Amino acid sequence: MSHQPLPLPEFAISPLDHGLKAALQAKIDNKTKPRGALGQLEGLALQLGLIQQSLTPVLQRPAMLVFAGDHGVVEEGVSPYPKEVTRQMVMNFLNGGAGINVFTRQYGMRIRIVDAGVCHEFSAHPELIRAKVSMGTSNFLKMPAMCPYMCNQALVNGYKLAQAEAGAGTNVMGFGEMGIGNTTSASAIVAVLCNLPVEQCVGRGTGLNDAGVAHKADVIRRAIARHQVDNKDPSAVLATFGGFEIAMMVGAMLGAAEQRVALLIDGFIATAALLVASRIAPAILEYCIFAHCSDEAGHKLVLEQLEAKPLLNLGLRLGEGTGAALAYPLVQAAVNFLNEMASFDSANISRQGAS
Amino acid sequence: MSHQPLPLPEFAISPLDHGLKAALQAKIDNKTKPRGALGQLEGLALQLGLIQQSLTPVLQRPAMLVFAGDHGVVEEGVSPYPKEVTRQMVMNFLNGGAGINVFTRQYGMRIRIVDAGVCHEFSAHPELIRAKVSMGTSNFLKMPAMCPYMCNQALVNGYKLAQAEAGAGTNVMGFGEMGIGNTTSASAIVAVLCNLPVEQCVGRGTGLNDAGVAHKADVIRRAIARHQVDNKDPSAVLATFGGFEIAMMVGAMLGAAEQRVALLIDGFIATAALLVASRIAPAILEYCIFAHCSDEAGHKLVLEQLEAKPLLNLGLRLGEGTGAALAYPLVQAAVNFLNEMASFDSANISRQGAS
Repeated sequence: MSHQPLPLPEFAISPLDHGLKAALQAKIDNKTKPRGALGQLEGLALQLGLIQQSLTPVLQRPAMLVFAGDHGVVEEGVSPYPKEVTRQMVMNFLNGGAGINVFTRQYGMRIRIVDAGVCHEFSAHPELIRAKVSMGTSNFLKMPAMCPYMCNQALVNGYKLAQAEAGAGTNVMGFGEMGIGNTTSASAIVAVLCNLPVEQCVGRGTGLNDAGVAHKADVIRRAIARHQVDNKDPSAVLATFGGFEIAMMVGAMLGAAEQRVALLIDGFIATAALLVASRIAPAILEYCIFAHCSDEAGHKLVLEQLEAKPLLNLGLRLGEGTGAALAYPLVQAAVNFLNEMASFDSANISRQGAS
Repeated sequence: MSHQPLPLPEFAISPLDHGLKAALQAKIDNKTKPRGALGQLEGLALQLGLIQQSLTPVLQRPAMLVFAGDHGVVEEGVSPYPKEVTRQMVMNFLNGGAGINVFTRQYGMRIRIVDAGVCHEFSAHPELIRAKVSMGTSNFLKMPAMCPYMCNQALVNGYKLAQAEAGAGTNVMGFGEMGIGNTTSASAIVAVLCNLPVEQCVGRGTGLNDAGVAHKADVIRRAIARHQVDNKDPSAVLATFGGFEIAMMVGAMLGAAEQRVALLIDGFIATAALLVASRIAPAILEYCIFAHCSDEAGHKLVLEQLEAKPLLNLGLRLGEGTGAALAYPLVQAAVNFLNEMASFDSANISRQGAS
């Protein structure tokens, strides 16, 4: 490539101002319930209040962005599904028949499918965002998955589209993905950035057997050995092992957090993307709501690295953003109890120890 | 009391017919997702299909019944809140300001507050069901909480009102409670029926400190020693240690399951009620969806005894049915994916291993 990489945005994510914390906590504690009785929902209400710098946070135009891309490494036999399934599932998304369609419909979330790098030219569709960088990544066992130029293009495309959604009023955003082979990509990213043994970061993906898992780990191990990427350079790690859907998700997460959007983090792949984003701009973590702990080995490890306590633990391993969507009603519940529950004073209820 | 106990209904709960299981599982496995990728939601979809004996189960007129009652044992100082809070919280429920109001509104659930035995005469209110058996239980440290006649009356009242809700079309029902002192009651029931050491069954309730917890355990231990109830007789255990809200909830759970309603089981107190119900009619367990694992010590133990795997684990300890309400969107999600997701065939998607 003769191109110079695109210049990246500044990713000016503000650390949360905790000035409102005491007032928010007092409001939460004065609700008609024992202190702390709403468990994790209380921390969530506090976080949303701080993100929005408001004692009465509201959720507006909730959106789910589902990024899709193809992976060259699939030719190494790392998935039990053929590569065509990425394209087929995008069509399923556009036809409203996938899991993420069902759950976003149920919860009243806007859904947008982002073609980040699928090996197919899709026709226009109202729910499709065409942001394709290429027809898929290169096989990272043989060469870097993408060149720095394309990686930056994916980051910028994601950044811009998240900013556009935020500009249209979205203040809570989920991030999903589809890409046959992308657990392989995510496992490599996590192993390198967290300096973990590959075997701890590799799982069954869409349904590998033990031999398949061992083979997948072997492919990743060989690729890591070949590239010798500096794990202090998140963009280089992303370009070497990432998928376009992962890179674009990284950019979108950064763009959304810059606009003070609350981020709903889905499963293993979305969390791997966030890991990259957090190495670029650590303040992003304060904007994250961790939706669930997936059944994919490695997800729990990344969550621990990020000191994240997810809301759900249902053994999900579908991706698409389904875990993030399923957690959304709990986020609504946190906002609703903060805004709608009576206080001890307003309801004339005796306080603890007042007998 | 000179009365003979009221005759109880038969509680004719049918064990689930598993004839549809293979067809339901095939339908689930043919959805456009890897097998098992929706984790616990898949088992939930299967269970709802079996309860309704349908490949296309639907949720109708979801209802939350919140039972309230006062406890004589409160005079032993087992709660940091005064007894009046039971009445005050019922007023809060009727005014729409409590946590359970917020969450049932959010999720479109019908709510009914049941006065099972609160020490107050409430005026009529559209959301109040007046089913009071007495103005509160006796102090079970000194005598049985209720006589067998009143216990049966509570069971029958609960049974009838759940059957009325089911008759009006409700096929999914949550059970909540309010009653200052009722974790003491529930702990005693669980300790006796599960033959567990009292200290394992006792928690902080609405916010006791360590000394308070030790005192509460001591009260329960002395009461158990005094009454020497046969733990093979669930009705006797219920009458000796129960609250009217707990007994009425037991009757309601039995009445609902008899009508093939799916039961949403909330936290420690609701699960203690279910424990009693399951000793009366074990088949009830097949109709139960365990909403969450609460932060109250003892709840986890009862869940283990019932081999229950709850949907949520958010550190909740509010009661009122809040955990059951918060789990409801997941129940909807299970039904929705079963009914709305495309199949591999309908979406023309390649199957696993088809590369």
